[in-house]
Amino acid sequence: MENFVLYNPVKLHFGIDVINDLGKTIALYGKRVLLVYGKNSIKENGIYNEIITQLKSINAEVFEYGGIKPNPIVDDVDAAAKFGRNNNVEVVLAVGGGSVIDSAKIISISIPVSHSAWDFFSGLRKPIVAIPLITILTIAATGTEMNAFAVIQNHKARQKIGWGHPLCFPKYSFLNPKYTISVRYENTAYGISDMIAHCLEAYFGKGDASLSDRITIAIMKEAIDNGSMLLKDLKNYELREKIMYAATLALNGITMGGRSGGDWAVHDIGHTFSLLFDIPHGASLTLAYPAWMKLMKKRIPQDISKLGKNLFDVNTTDETIIKFEEFFKWMGCPVRLEDVGLSIENKKQILDTMIRNKVTGFHHKLNNEDLSDIIDFMIE
Amino acid sequence: MENFVLYNPVKLHFGIDVINDLGKTIALYGKRVLLVYGKNSIKENGIYNEIITQLKSINAEVFEYGGIKPNPIVDDVDAAAKFGRNNNVEVVLAVGGGSVIDSAKIISISIPVSHSAWDFFSGLRKPIVAIPLITILTIAATGTEMNAFAVIQNHKARQKIGWGHPLCFPKYSFLNPKYTISVRYENTAYGISDMIAHCLEAYFGKGDASLSDRITIAIMKEAIDNGSMLLKDLKNYELREKIMYAATLALNGITMGGRSGGDWAVHDIGHTFSLLFDIPHGASLTLAYPAWMKLMKKRIPQDISKLGKNLFDVNTTDETIIKFEEFFKWMGCPVRLEDVGLSIENKKQILDTMIRNKVTGFHHKLNNEDLSDIIDFMIE
Repeated sequence: MENFVLYNPVKLHFGIDVINDLGKTIALYGKRVLLVYGKNSIKENGIYNEIITQLKSINAEVFEYGGIKPNPIVDDVDAAAKFGRNNNVEVVLAVGGGSVIDSAKIISISIPVSHSAWDFFSGLRKPIVAIPLITILTIAATGTEMNAFAVIQNHKARQKIGWGHPLCFPKYSFLNPKYTISVRYENTAYGISDMIAHCLEAYFGKGDASLSDRITIAIMKEAIDNGSMLLKDLKNYELREKIMYAATLALNGITMGGRSGGDWAVHDIGHTFSLLFDIPHGASLTLAYPAWMKLMKKRIPQDISKLGKNLFDVNTTDETIIKFEEFFKWMGCPVRLEDVGLSIENKKQILDTMIRNKVTGFHHKLNNEDLSDIIDFMIE
Repeated sequence: MENFVLYNPVKLHFGIDVINDLGKTIALYGKRVLLVYGKNSIKENGIYNEIITQLKSINAEVFEYGGIKPNPIVDDVDAAAKFGRNNNVEVVLAVGGGSVIDSAKIISISIPVSHSAWDFFSGLRKPIVAIPLITILTIAATGTEMNAFAVIQNHKARQKIGWGHPLCFPKYSFLNPKYTISVRYENTAYGISDMIAHCLEAYFGKGDASLSDRITIAIMKEAIDNGSMLLKDLKNYELREKIMYAATLALNGITMGGRSGGDWAVHDIGHTFSLLFDIPHGASLTLAYPAWMKLMKKRIPQDISKLGKNLFDVNTTDETIIKFEEFFKWMGCPVRLEDVGLSIENKKQILDTMIRNKVTGFHHKLNNEDLSDIIDFMIE
């Protein structure tokens, strides 16, 4: 095993009606609340009203910043931070999925400063303090509700970067699976692919971590088994519960015991596609993972075939990769460039961006030729 | 799933030489340190010297309270708390196993008050504040290093009680598997039985928790597979690593997602034997669990046989229970009253104590007749 630190101070409240504790929880920190959300869908499905009821119960003063985009941009983060700073907010309340909560994390450390949030991502500055953040999750996918990471893109710098800091842990996260019932098929599938990809990034990380391997595979199995049923029965509350919890555990640190880090090459490859072609994060991952495995199958055959054995009861690396592709395709997710409307003609642009943004992976290092091969595997 | 809260703020540093960060970590809280430990073995195996080196590096003033007993008693907790209070200690540093760390948790909330620590266990008073607690674990077993629970006994009240409070979470725990290399066979086996029992208490708790079931079974499988090898190779560092991490996860909350609580009847049954006959905690659990399962096999046959299938590849409840008994016996742990020098003649005393101390379990409630049957199953 590699040396590691296990640390996660988020208080996660999970289940039906946990929102009833929201008001008094916010009041622990103050009454001037910056409410961050994305599309107006929370107003249509009733979530907004439930939250406003809670905020009213403590006479909170609410400052709303809506319109966070699915691939969130630093411009929104900076604007929301300025809005919160000008109004002396005491709490940030994020209501949404990964994009909203990721943005809110960076907003919460940007309110106390005057520079752009991008300075944190570029490494120019370090956060000193955060406005307390409380989150309400509305889609099971990224696991952001129980970690300290955020992914933001900057169109000017042509970068989409994942970054984290302990100050970005939410204080509380409220997870009511009911709020995910209305998530449409496509986004449900992307969420499932995202949680599986998080498990794979950990699994392919550095370290002889037998217990973490068992747990990581358990989370993937839960995601595949229940995800398969959920996509045929989107309104099923029990399946929404299971998928929501699996997504949280897929990236709250519990897959990382005994590892010094995950690999994360595939996420960086995926970010390239989102940045260039605005492809949803979950879709970019199903496109990238089989291709990455095809490159790696000769380098780490046992790691790949162990997955196949445990998840799909197959024995070879090729069968394992085919099973992943079949599952992703069955969900309706892309596994080839043509599935997202791209072709060999886009290769140069993709490869150049990957190289410029230093896509290498942390454990199984990729060179430029590897990146080129991976794109080729998306065509074959 | 049942509603649940996932929360664990302990910072766990795991691996070789993590102790190098001890000095600066203590200094975060102060330099007047109450050092709590048990037997003098930490002086013989070099751990004490490594710790003193760290304490000297920050010019700490150290107040030592040694001699915590394997089944820790409230008298020691009260005496150590008074000692710490009189010396205005700013940090409690616990070095040892479950008994030492459990005691230190209660010492850390008792230093700021003047009443006996037992008032917390009896429910008379609630803790308001804690002196920061840092732990160094020297035996893999109870999981106390990453939870807020403690088990203390009170001979005057004839009670051994498990109790917890969020203020009892250690701030930091340092786990170096090297420190467990010298743990002798018997205590290594008891540690393995303890972590398995913690998993079982969760598994038999309330709630349809499929992912937690998978994770709980994964931890047990890790404990059984690696424990079997470790008991034949006690100095094996890699196996000590795996067992140490399994023990932590067996009771740090990760088995509890989707459950409203564990069952804990078997722990309370075990505590009765420790209280009356000073039987080691791990041994009391191997004595109690098969007997409890024999009572429960008609009430929850599927829960028991699912364990057998996943852990031992057997199909029936009876085969499952036999496999557990065989494994416990193979480790040298007791599974019958006669194995601990008791007989039917002790039944009345045991039963009376169980009834007086209200041993019922939280989920699968036991009545007095059930308790009587369980003791009988320890004889058959």
